[in-house]
Amino acid sequence: MSAVIRNIDEAEQAEIEMEGVRGASMAIMVGRSDGAPNFAIRHICVEPGGHTPQHQHDYEHEVFVISGRGDILLGGERHAIRGGDVIYVPVEEEHQFRADAQGEGLRFLCAVPMTRDCGDPVPAS
Amino acid sequence: MSAVIRNIDEAEQAEIEMEGVRGASMAIMVGRSDGAPNFAIRHICVEPGGHTPQHQHDYEHEVFVISGRGDILLGGERHAIRGGDVIYVPVEEEHQFRADAQGEGLRFLCAVPMTRDCGDPVPAS
Repeated sequence: MSAVIRNIDEAEQAEIEMEGVRGASMAIMVGRSDGAPNFAIRHICVEPGGHTPQHQHDYEHEVFVISGRGDILLGGERHAIRGGDVIYVPVEEEHQFRADAQGEGLRFLCAVPMTRDCGDPVPAS
Repeated sequence: MSAVIRNIDEAEQAEIEMEGVRGASMAIMVGRSDGAPNFAIRHICVEPGGHTPQHQHDYEHEVFVISGRGDILLGGERHAIRGGDVIYVPVEEEHQFRADAQGEGLRFLCAVPMTRDCGDPVPAS
């Protein structure tokens, strides 16, 4: 498959329809359909006062907060998050993203593996 | 290993000392040493007029341009890039990032797999 350059402002966000979600939408920016072999990057917008589900699963998240303010439930506690934060949510760790009720909402990238369990190290990984 | 929240503005950038690099530094934001199992996120800053090496390798990049302006060599051509762009550089695709000579330079995240070749699909990947 070939290279991709696409801007988050031109992404088609789809409402996340899932129990425990309020006011959140997602676009897959790079994923399986692009031929990406190992991990996908999704762009997620959470409206002011909205949230993602409080849950856990058998794969990790690696997140970059693009803009806005909110908090994340992680390690059993709420932590304030803001633009520029990189967050690692390990496998089976309960988590939830919430946007502050006031303000612009929360915009972040959330990367997930396509799969699990692999081979050799990549330089600088 | 446990969860991580760290901001790119507090990352310790290390100069990239590699043939073909000019004015570029990197910090691993989430990586192998955090226990991340599948992929790593690095924060890369390129000074105005600087560039990463023009090369190719046997693993992909998934990139998010945080800020600044520049271009990328991809598919044999130079493409202008800017904040908000998500870029997929497939395996063995020649590429190079350059920051415009004028302006603030280029700041981006570059994610790489820890390894290659895996198993089952992850939802929404």
